[in-house]
Amino acid sequence: MRISELSRTSGVSVASIKYYTREGLIAAGERVGYNQTRYDDSHVARLKLIRALITGGGLSIAATQNVLAAVDDDQLELGDVFAVAQRASSLAPETQPSPSATERVLSFVRDHGWDVGASNPGIAMVASALESFDEVSRTDLIEILTPYAGAADRIAESDLDNVPVDEARERSAETIVVGTVLGDTILAGLRRIAQEHHSKLRIAAATSAPDHEHA
Amino acid sequence: MRISELSRTSGVSVASIKYYTREGLIAAGERVGYNQTRYDDSHVARLKLIRALITGGGLSIAATQNVLAAVDDDQLELGDVFAVAQRASSLAPETQPSPSATERVLSFVRDHGWDVGASNPGIAMVASALESFDEVSRTDLIEILTPYAGAADRIAESDLDNVPVDEARERSAETIVVGTVLGDTILAGLRRIAQEHHSKLRIAAATSAPDHEHA
Repeated sequence: MRISELSRTSGVSVASIKYYTREGLIAAGERVGYNQTRYDDSHVARLKLIRALITGGGLSIAATQNVLAAVDDDQLELGDVFAVAQRASSLAPETQPSPSATERVLSFVRDHGWDVGASNPGIAMVASALESFDEVSRTDLIEILTPYAGAADRIAESDLDNVPVDEARERSAETIVVGTVLGDTILAGLRRIAQEHHSKLRIAAATSAPDHEHA
Repeated sequence: MRISELSRTSGVSVASIKYYTREGLIAAGERVGYNQTRYDDSHVARLKLIRALITGGGLSIAATQNVLAAVDDDQLELGDVFAVAQRASSLAPETQPSPSATERVLSFVRDHGWDVGASNPGIAMVASALESFDEVSRTDLIEILTPYAGAADRIAESDLDNVPVDEARERSAETIVVGTVLGDTILAGLRRIAQEHHSKLRIAAATSAPDHEHA
């Protein structure tokens, strides 16, 4: 198909297609004859993946480049695709967390029985949040780590269930990338929904308990 | 204390203190005599809260204004403080999700037994992620909603456990704000850590199972 049809089918403007091609996010089309380029379904699929990552997941162009390079690299193991996707979708804290906050996270990670490398981007994310708790004199809030970690175990298990071992590598790599990037948004969204629900339940329980026995 | 001491104690520059005062994030100090203003411990505490929200939580000045106004408003119920904090820390999707994606989320929410208003910001967040799944032809990934929702219930319950009913309103309001804003980061961080751990476990299981019985 021509670039105009590729644009219609994918919903991505011609200008954006040309930009993504220049940035190496999408392979150039096949040049046929004078001033014409032909594209196929693989270009449509790639453009939709790019849109999901950039528009849906809020990734930058640079982060999208890294993630797509990991999807395309047949030699890269799936565990490493996870690492690339995690890094691409992690907002690095503005300042490096202190060694003591980092040590508290590493010690929690060990006690929880998790075996992870010190370069996992989650460690700095959690450490910088703990520093903010310290700053507002709420060191006690570190206790949420235990229930949160239990929830994270469950989430990670279901993330991995989406990547069956007998699947083609490219599909698995795409699942890892899309799931890691969009999973944070889904989780943050469901947390907001659950907070409202449970908050209403507790308010209802607190106000009806004393004297509305048969209500 | 003078502004120079306030700056030293809080770790916030004099220029930022003046800026936050102009933007109404912090009350003006008490004017004493010629060209001098006096601040007290409440200013130190407020500056630390602002830093936690802006530097730690990545909130904008405008979002921080909304959140602090909710903390300061004695008439606002704590359930509404949650709503304000949620909204301030939710990145609105670039485009409004389609009615069909929104309806799928609302139907999931009903089936899960959650009672929430249609304006809960989590609904649009989840709907836009589902649209991205559709776009890359991975509608099957909607199935992660079930395990994720179970995890979200657990997280929301522990968020609410941090707000005991017999506590002073201001402290509860601050906990809600700090916990809601930083909780997303902690959760995203722990998810990355758990993903690496469980991914290693599965790879180890897959490679050792066939012929390393006694390894």
